[in-house]
Amino acid sequence: MIVVLKPNPDPEQLDNLTVWLTSQNITIHSSLGINNLVLGLVGDTSTIDMELIKSLDIVEDVKRIREPYKNANRKFHPDDLIVEVGGVKIGGGHFAICAGPCSIETEDQMKQVAMGVLEGGATLLRGGAFKPRTSPYAFQGLGGNGIELLIKAKKASGLPVVTEIMEIGQLKYFEEVDMIQVGARNMQNFQLLKELGHVDKPILLKRGLANTIDELLMSAEYIMAGGNEAVVLCERGIRTFETATRNTLDISAIPVLKKKTHLPVMVDPSHASGIADLVKPLALAATAAGADGLMIEVHNDPQHALCDGAQSLTPERFADVAKAVFAIRPYAMRSEEMSQ
Amino acid sequence: MIVVLKPNPDPEQLDNLTVWLTSQNITIHSSLGINNLVLGLVGDTSTIDMELIKSLDIVEDVKRIREPYKNANRKFHPDDLIVEVGGVKIGGGHFAICAGPCSIETEDQMKQVAMGVLEGGATLLRGGAFKPRTSPYAFQGLGGNGIELLIKAKKASGLPVVTEIMEIGQLKYFEEVDMIQVGARNMQNFQLLKELGHVDKPILLKRGLANTIDELLMSAEYIMAGGNEAVVLCERGIRTFETATRNTLDISAIPVLKKKTHLPVMVDPSHASGIADLVKPLALAATAAGADGLMIEVHNDPQHALCDGAQSLTPERFADVAKAVFAIRPYAMRSEEMSQ
Amino acid sequence: MIVVLKPNPDPEQLDNLTVWLTSQNITIHSSLGINNLVLGLVGDTSTIDMELIKSLDIVEDVKRIREPYKNANRKFHPDDLIVEVGGVKIGGGHFAICAGPCSIETEDQMKQVAMGVLEGGATLLRGGAFKPRTSPYAFQGLGGNGIELLIKAKKASGLPVVTEIMEIGQLKYFEEVDMIQVGARNMQNFQLLKELGHVDKPILLKRGLANTIDELLMSAEYIMAGGNEAVVLCERGIRTFETATRNTLDISAIPVLKKKTHLPVMVDPSHASGIADLVKPLALAATAAGADGLMIEVHNDPQHALCDGAQSLTPERFADVAKAVFAIRPYAMRSEEMSQ
Amino acid sequence: MIVVLKPNPDPEQLDNLTVWLTSQNITIHSSLGINNLVLGLVGDTSTIDMELIKSLDIVEDVKRIREPYKNANRKFHPDDLIVEVGGVKIGGGHFAICAGPCSIETEDQMKQVAMGVLEGGATLLRGGAFKPRTSPYAFQGLGGNGIELLIKAKKASGLPVVTEIMEIGQLKYFEEVDMIQVGARNMQNFQLLKELGHVDKPILLKRGLANTIDELLMSAEYIMAGGNEAVVLCERGIRTFETATRNTLDISAIPVLKKKTHLPVMVDPSHASGIADLVKPLALAATAAGADGLMIEVHNDPQHALCDGAQSLTPERFADVAKAVFAIRPYAMRSEEMSQ
Repeated sequence: MIVVLKPNPDPEQLDNLTVWLTSQNITIHSSLGINNLVLGLVGDTSTIDMELIKSLDIVEDVKRIREPYKNANRKFHPDDLIVEVGGVKIGGGHFAICAGPCSIETEDQMKQVAMGVLEGGATLLRGGAFKPRTSPYAFQGLGGNGIELLIKAKKASGLPVVTEIMEIGQLKYFEEVDMIQVGARNMQNFQLLKELGHVDKPILLKRGLANTIDELLMSAEYIMAGGNEAVVLCERGIRTFETATRNTLDISAIPVLKKKTHLPVMVDPSHASGIADLVKPLALAATAAGADGLMIEVHNDPQHALCDGAQSLTPERFADVAKAVFAIRPYAMRSEEMSQ
Repeated sequence: MIVVLKPNPDPEQLDNLTVWLTSQNITIHSSLGINNLVLGLVGDTSTIDMELIKSLDIVEDVKRIREPYKNANRKFHPDDLIVEVGGVKIGGGHFAICAGPCSIETEDQMKQVAMGVLEGGATLLRGGAFKPRTSPYAFQGLGGNGIELLIKAKKASGLPVVTEIMEIGQLKYFEEVDMIQVGARNMQNFQLLKELGHVDKPILLKRGLANTIDELLMSAEYIMAGGNEAVVLCERGIRTFETATRNTLDISAIPVLKKKTHLPVMVDPSHASGIADLVKPLALAATAAGADGLMIEVHNDPQHALCDGAQSLTPERFADVAKAVFAIRPYAMRSEEMSQ
Repeated sequence: MIVVLKPNPDPEQLDNLTVWLTSQNITIHSSLGINNLVLGLVGDTSTIDMELIKSLDIVEDVKRIREPYKNANRKFHPDDLIVEVGGVKIGGGHFAICAGPCSIETEDQMKQVAMGVLEGGATLLRGGAFKPRTSPYAFQGLGGNGIELLIKAKKASGLPVVTEIMEIGQLKYFEEVDMIQVGARNMQNFQLLKELGHVDKPILLKRGLANTIDELLMSAEYIMAGGNEAVVLCERGIRTFETATRNTLDISAIPVLKKKTHLPVMVDPSHASGIADLVKPLALAATAAGADGLMIEVHNDPQHALCDGAQSLTPERFADVAKAVFAIRPYAMRSEEMSQ
Repeated sequence: MIVVLKPNPDPEQLDNLTVWLTSQNITIHSSLGINNLVLGLVGDTSTIDMELIKSLDIVEDVKRIREPYKNANRKFHPDDLIVEVGGVKIGGGHFAICAGPCSIETEDQMKQVAMGVLEGGATLLRGGAFKPRTSPYAFQGLGGNGIELLIKAKKASGLPVVTEIMEIGQLKYFEEVDMIQVGARNMQNFQLLKELGHVDKPILLKRGLANTIDELLMSAEYIMAGGNEAVVLCERGIRTFETATRNTLDISAIPVLKKKTHLPVMVDPSHASGIADLVKPLALAATAAGADGLMIEVHNDPQHALCDGAQSLTPERFADVAKAVFAIRPYAMRSEEMSQ
């Protein structure tokens, strides 16, 4: 961390700062640049609050040199992490397609979709049981019963399953779930992240609608700091002024993340766009840019989906998307090109 | 809700839609506008998923006429709600200033700040015990012990207290807390909102960094639908491209909210800007625009604050801000001018 | 256009509105939906100001059914437009790569880059002579002399050339230029657009940093309304809260535009990201998503570029990008899949 | 400017950089911070391209210490600038209200509005003759004839007049115009700004929808660098994800600008919100936050305005707004509180 002081800093305040930094086990290398004194802080600056330093009267500006995350940092983990989900590998050259309905509704629906997406090329099955809905009057998901139906579909299809958790109390239903999803709205639910750090299952962490890439990595760090290193990141669109799509898929997040972290990066083109017709072009783009996998909403009858119908494909259209994705994969950006 | 169909809709699909809508207790008034058939849906459309309807092949567009919130809707509650917090009224012409440090650190600090802000003009005391921090390595607050220190400061100063909850399991520490704050990052933590709907204490609900005004009202609706109608809204800045301030204070949110809802609206100029020098002009602006109260960070020694120091004032500067706010209040926008 | 009236509209105001709409050659189909009267406006509503109608006391809401652009609308031009630039085709299955430096500096530089990008696979040469720079003290380009150097490089390489115009007075220098670029900051310089509508050269219209897709199409409409139908659109990143990249490439804009318009769509990964390492993954993503071409900054010596050096590739790295792009093209989204 | 080098920089590249910087008349103070070499650049760094330096292989990061604007910088001009517009002062404690219609339509309309706003408290008259409209089919303004009608209204009312220029060729119509407005869409029309630097009339420079505060100051710098120092800045809302208002008024821009520059700052609540009901609360907020003036749209008959009707007030409602603004002014933030 570099601290640029204002010209002629008050000596007492400078002394206070020096004492406080030293008490935080930080060594200070000061050097006179131009007409400003510049302090170089050496040591573990990840716990130093930049904003606090910036607030001091004698400080002109502060600049972080080292990222404030370690476990999620590629600098300390040059090789791609491979996360295993019920035997399916993600990352390090392994590509996964996770597909299924937004909401789990009935046993029949889940089985039909599971068999449909299996045939279409999916390697993981998704389905929502606990649903974060903007309105308290909207369908909130089948909860524990929904997860039971998902497990039945898992057994019928052989596909490992992924589903969302909304609070740690729901963990008791997740015993047979293969990967636990943290939704965009909970990306900074730090209590939940901490608890998931102690769980022995891979976590799929979705980026919040208004969160930066660095904040996503800090949230991964929360989980990893607790001991659970099996984190898969997922870009799913950010909130911008453009209203032609529900969110704006930040395609650049893929290569930026691949450079900054060794964690696998998936992309959810369904939620990013909110439009079924855009799923295929966005899935191809994400694959080409080097994503390690895709999350795609598929429903056996979009007309009757209880939520998010606008972004769902039929199993037939999903199969067409998956086929195109597998065809383009050999020509996509490779992780080793982006990690240097 | 108005549904505009595409030209020449498939009769079977139109029939399916009609049957499904009727099953949701919706009556349909169809009328031939131009070359598109237009359906007017009558009934309780708050549970109808607009996105689902929009996803149908035969549908061109969908438009909501009635807001999807009822309890928080001024149309059904024309008079301003007055929320009482330990005897202090907010809303309906009653103005409150809530002040205190970002983080509770020591008993001395809390008492000094409490007495300082009391003298300066504050009517409520704030202090953070459970802290949502972006980094797992940053100070996470004193937790239950912090709330104990806050209660001691409450007793010393006589000021009712406000502090943030991060998960419902922490509720046991809030017995003597007068108002429970839901932070920006938890504005769409729907599980937490639901639980707070059953709590018999007023809730201060802060707007999320990337949440629309309508989403803020839907989150209030979550709490109110559970039976707890004592909700105070708080604008605290949204995330935009501008980096001169930490967030962009959406000053228009005040009059927009006053028109849409009868709930009191507070403003937090400290978090909105992240810069102590901006607290006074933003506090004056928010008051002038018709806010029902302010949340201001005050610290007895900004140099030693453990977090968010950059936005903290000393008690002396706070007193100057409060004095200016009280002076400008008689000339501010009145609620009845905005609610029509 | 659909106008939803408030309940019990004032009869005189409704009469005024009806008379005014009729004077604009609009026929009105009124129909009683629910408890609101709904007016369907038939005729050429492209000149009707939605905001004006919305401002009337008796109006609840207004909704446009038909897009306000005609010349740029795929509904009226189902087949892809093919734009020819000095013999090079763009659109309708024809893919072009335009490459070259941000700023034209010397004759040697331009010739070297031109020969380099030609060898690497470029089909068009770009170079900036008139440079829109944020600072008045930054290098503003060589102007007319720069265009002369560009034309020399065109003759040496045989590549058609593209360069930016900043005001119509500069047109005299563009005689031998093959395509005229309108930069992002001039996307809504309506005077310039109108003038370019009378020019007999293809126009490359870049999307503004904060402009919606519909606004981009309206700007294309300005040019086309003047008679010049040879417009190529270019997505180059929008401004969002994310700071890891200079702008956020809106990859969804490609399929959204392909559905709405028959005009070719290019993508500029260099300006979108501002980072040379991101050019390859973003170029692959844009190609996969169905773009009709790419704009890539290439410089013979990035260390000495006078501007935008951060986003420039060497000719060697460009050749690697172009090779990967050509390899992925056969597996990319096809225009006919997106235009229905 | 501070340049942080990567560990173990290539000596040849470092040498190249040093030579190049020296050729730009920059002196280098290098100092070894931590494990990174830090270069302090002394001299006129306003012409040094940060992005270029950042692009070099050996550079980790670059940080600007000094702002890249001089003429608009309060550091070099501690006293508020007072701009005179036809005898009316703006800035330095002088407050102006500029009012009038979006579009000039007829002689009667302009005279009626002029007399109405004069009576209501306006000190300047505005009216649009050259109109930047998103659609080529919308009314584009009366042009030179419109300015004639504005001048007639000026003579009738005695109010100095402000109107927008869209390209420098229109300057011939501005002889009797007292202040020339540069609209939001032209804030980075650098050619126009340069030309206005040679004009002997005050300029009202509106902030672009997606431009930062620093970019606004750089655009002011363009005008001032040409010799015209009479620039008034105008905040008029920025583009964000929130759709409840047309744009989001960035109220913080007022105190941020007052600190950074000595130029007067006006606010346009009409365009910021696009909603007539919000003009009063936003006008009060802007005044309270320390604005030096307001731009307010007023129309004698909003029902018949040809554009932007949604944001127009009648003269009666304007008089109510102006009265409230004048009443709140004595309690507003003062410039000297923000300029330190």
